[in-house]
Amino acid sequence: MKTRAAVAFEARKPLEVVELDLAGPKAGEVLVEIMATGICHTDAYTLDGFDSEGIFPAVLGHEGAGIVREIGAGVTYVQPGDHVIPLYTPECRQCRMCLSGKTNLCSAIRDTQGRGVMPDGTSRFSYKGQTVFHYMGCSTFSNFTVLPEIAVAKIRTDAPFQTSCYIGCGVTTGVGAVVNTAKVRPGDNIVVFGLGGIGLNVIQGARMAGAGRIVGVDINDDKEEWGRRFGMTDFVNPKKLGDAELVETLVAMLDGGADYSFDCTGNTDVMRQALECCHKGWGTSIIIGVAEAGKEISTRPFQLVTGRNWRGSAFGGAKGRTDVPRIVDWYMEGKIAIDPMITHVLSLDEINQGFDLMHEGKSIRSVVVY
Amino acid sequence: MKTRAAVAFEARKPLEVVELDLAGPKAGEVLVEIMATGICHTDAYTLDGFDSEGIFPAVLGHEGAGIVREIGAGVTYVQPGDHVIPLYTPECRQCRMCLSGKTNLCSAIRDTQGRGVMPDGTSRFSYKGQTVFHYMGCSTFSNFTVLPEIAVAKIRTDAPFQTSCYIGCGVTTGVGAVVNTAKVRPGDNIVVFGLGGIGLNVIQGARMAGAGRIVGVDINDDKEEWGRRFGMTDFVNPKKLGDAELVETLVAMLDGGADYSFDCTGNTDVMRQALECCHKGWGTSIIIGVAEAGKEISTRPFQLVTGRNWRGSAFGGAKGRTDVPRIVDWYMEGKIAIDPMITHVLSLDEINQGFDLMHEGKSIRSVVVY
Repeated sequence: MKTRAAVAFEARKPLEVVELDLAGPKAGEVLVEIMATGICHTDAYTLDGFDSEGIFPAVLGHEGAGIVREIGAGVTYVQPGDHVIPLYTPECRQCRMCLSGKTNLCSAIRDTQGRGVMPDGTSRFSYKGQTVFHYMGCSTFSNFTVLPEIAVAKIRTDAPFQTSCYIGCGVTTGVGAVVNTAKVRPGDNIVVFGLGGIGLNVIQGARMAGAGRIVGVDINDDKEEWGRRFGMTDFVNPKKLGDAELVETLVAMLDGGADYSFDCTGNTDVMRQALECCHKGWGTSIIIGVAEAGKEISTRPFQLVTGRNWRGSAFGGAKGRTDVPRIVDWYMEGKIAIDPMITHVLSLDEINQGFDLMHEGKSIRSVVVY
Repeated sequence: MKTRAAVAFEARKPLEVVELDLAGPKAGEVLVEIMATGICHTDAYTLDGFDSEGIFPAVLGHEGAGIVREIGAGVTYVQPGDHVIPLYTPECRQCRMCLSGKTNLCSAIRDTQGRGVMPDGTSRFSYKGQTVFHYMGCSTFSNFTVLPEIAVAKIRTDAPFQTSCYIGCGVTTGVGAVVNTAKVRPGDNIVVFGLGGIGLNVIQGARMAGAGRIVGVDINDDKEEWGRRFGMTDFVNPKKLGDAELVETLVAMLDGGADYSFDCTGNTDVMRQALECCHKGWGTSIIIGVAEAGKEISTRPFQLVTGRNWRGSAFGGAKGRTDVPRIVDWYMEGKIAIDPMITHVLSLDEINQGFDLMHEGKSIRSVVVY
């Protein structure tokens, strides 16, 4: 079949919207009509050539929502007509990682996914007879895409595509880091570094979990209003502190420090501050942001020996098929908000504008609707 | 009263055994006759002048066992005749830290303890009219010492002093890191870096907890026999690996890496290896060793984002009055061994020999018996 798609033919070039050939789903795969897709920093990271393992040409996009249109042999989890969110972190429920009960990092198809192909080692996309690769196992910048059955989460049919697609990455990454990784409990004090989309989702996850103080830290004062809208109780702009040290300020504000802190900046210096503002004895800092290649985090070991914990979170610690439908429920029940975060809605032909808006810091989330 | 004590009059000088004046216990304090005391690296660290906050003259020693001889006003927890282990990490059961249920780092008397005095701000020791300071709130290099009531653990009377004194620091630090901090469970694979006294106690704690593979890492082949005696199942000498990387070797040995790793070296480069040999998704590395002043730990944040956890442990995460008596029970029940670790028994007059043996790597633990 044919599908319209925004193709990244090479790094550091705008996407090109073309018609691709798409082979149908093989055994264990499903064909999904993507109805909406968010544009995420990770797509830009790859497109801008920062990902040394980036493969081109490829169909980028990993934050979508759509409808199953066809299933391959042996597929039992979904049927045509089911609404789904593609999962760049799949959940096979059979590998050692899934069965450990201790991580969401399913290893079932990691190798082929990293090489831009389906589990059988081939791509379903081609353009004028040449292979076009999959991306993060999702490729949501195509109106139709093929996914392994274990890489879709079945969701309720009354959730709007235009907003629930954001649960495919940003919402789950932020809310999940609070709920699954940190397991924030009522009354816990938290600090969030970086009030972009992920930071705002950390904030609303913390609000939902009943957190006490929810302190947002950002060097851009414009973010304060955004943070407060989702539950932030205090705002600190490190550039406005004068001689005061950020870490000391936060420790004093929170009577000893944060129960949990979250880095949503990707800046390794900030990651250190996030650790060191944690409460002695139990404070846990969770790294969500992706750092530049080659950058390292550092601290004095004394920080850990006196009881602080340093951890990380990928895809919000969420098991895709289990936890993503639950987050869609929370959205539909009004426990978390997504609509105000969708600042721009574009057509596929306008997709490069979405990247521009992100680079200029003008959007929380731009979504392409097919 | 008078007491014989080994006094550190200044840094980088041998201890001098002299007769001190000792004031009796004030309200909330107890007088303890120390029957035996271990000589620990931390005492040497202070004596050798590495601790920038070291105070002199002082009675060092923090790993003792003895008998309560007198109690001050209001003391209810112990009576004269009770056998006790002094606690450099007290347990007041009333401060915010104790009541949190999340840490053993009681804050009740931290400030005065750090200043070498009892909670009322004064010392009980003097020599020819001049103040001699307490050390870590214990000062077990004195035949008699005064301790706050909250800084003694009451133990069973059938436990020999000469061995149970080691529970006052080394045993609890190692066994406790496994049991309280890591919470190792049957079948978990662990790696221990550094097979000194702490490392051996980590090993036997892991054996007691039913760990699967217990891998010891040390650059001294002589440690292999010691490790195996306490439950180590595999030994790796990094110097004998040839071109193989230590981390890769350990990850391959343990089918993806350690469930828990423990640094007992204090070397920050080793701490990094300890983290990076942990299993993706859940492996937790626990820093026990004390690093040189100014040294920092580093890693790529990716190590944490992919599910490794970096933590620390002080006094084995043990709440002194609650957990130390339990460890004494484990010793008396044969669940852990201490006797073979006590490699040298000295008189107080021979105490400087104990420091020499430690510096020369010839002892696991030297104990002074009064």
